Amino acid sequence: MNSSQLSKLNILWQNFDVNRHLRQQQKGQKACCVWFTGLSGSGKSTIANLVDKHLNINGHHTFLLDGDNLRHGINRDLGFTEADRIENVRRVAEIAKLMVDAGLIVLVALISPYRVDRELARGLFAEGDFFEVFVDTPLEVCEQRDPKGLYAKARAGFIKNFTGIDSIYEQPLIPELRISTVDVSTLEATEAVCNLIENNGVEFI
Amino acid sequence: MNSSQLSKLNILWQNFDVNRHLRQQQKGQKACCVWFTGLSGSGKSTIANLVDKHLNINGHHTFLLDGDNLRHGINRDLGFTEADRIENVRRVAEIAKLMVDAGLIVLVALISPYRVDRELARGLFAEGDFFEVFVDTPLEVCEQRDPKGLYAKARAGFIKNFTGIDSIYEQPLIPELRISTVDVSTLEATEAVCNLIENNGVEFI
Repeated sequence: MNSSQLSKLNILWQNFDVNRHLRQQQKGQKACCVWFTGLSGSGKSTIANLVDKHLNINGHHTFLLDGDNLRHGINRDLGFTEADRIENVRRVAEIAKLMVDAGLIVLVALISPYRVDRELARGLFAEGDFFEVFVDTPLEVCEQRDPKGLYAKARAGFIKNFTGIDSIYEQPLIPELRISTVDVSTLEATEAVCNLIENNGVEFI
Repeated sequence: MNSSQLSKLNILWQNFDVNRHLRQQQKGQKACCVWFTGLSGSGKSTIANLVDKHLNINGHHTFLLDGDNLRHGINRDLGFTEADRIENVRRVAEIAKLMVDAGLIVLVALISPYRVDRELARGLFAEGDFFEVFVDTPLEVCEQRDPKGLYAKARAGFIKNFTGIDSIYEQPLIPELRISTVDVSTLEATEAVCNLIENNGVEFI
């Protein structure tokens, strides 16, 4: 439903007194969305978790939106067809946007395999509010690690539409940050993401 | 998709280091969801906005989820059929739950006309985390106020499935708070909601 249709349906946007600016001020930080994309097993959740921990210890107000966990809640009605993956990414982006409006630094860990969907996600945010972090781990390495045993199941045909096996992953062309996990430690990766956020105006205590 | 199906799809819940307890502690408050239900024009958004302002001024970390505003974002694909209204309420409840996990006091202003959907929303939360506030304004009064001119349009047949006109509203049977807006001022209503939250363990500075 586009805004013209919404207008026809008489759904008007309403501004409230406590806005993003006030919420950020209260939290002493600039809100933003850090979007981790990469294959299953690439290390997205691991790095996001460490960044979250580091920010929290330093007094920042954050939240971590994890793709798998969201499929237990708001996205439980969605499967893994192309249409459902698109809707999955759209909803997560919209929730991240609401949380940025709430003044939070939002970390999203989501395979989000299609470039066009990640661009749609980015498009919801103002310039400087969205950071794409490509957790770049080669398929062979992810498959070798296989922390949840999913690649083995996918290869054996027990899981269909598995990214990297029988469903494509489109690498980001110009992410704000690319982390080559075979070259750097998770600690170095965490520092790189924190630097990215810091350069965005978040001051570390 | 139920949890058995999810399990078959190998989507496992993952716990992260920074949990709700730590996020609440950082914010010095107990998170909760205050769910304002009532007819269009009953005063839900007005009261929620004042509560939000009051809590913010007193140093609390809040967010306001407004039904109309959400229809411009995450719920833009939904209309006003019964199925779409149910999905609308479900998604808002799931987002409110995520925000409670983020340690926030979440104010929801949503007509949410069906009792069963509000009970499903309540069911997502732990005991003592969810407060239903019935903004009880008689249809005749809402129609007389008609702040957005919607009742006039609905009566004239220009808007279909309008709650109170050609779509039902089921009053809450035992809400945590019922506000009769013809008997109390918006200021008194705001105080009553703040008292409700305070009794839930939020300390006012």
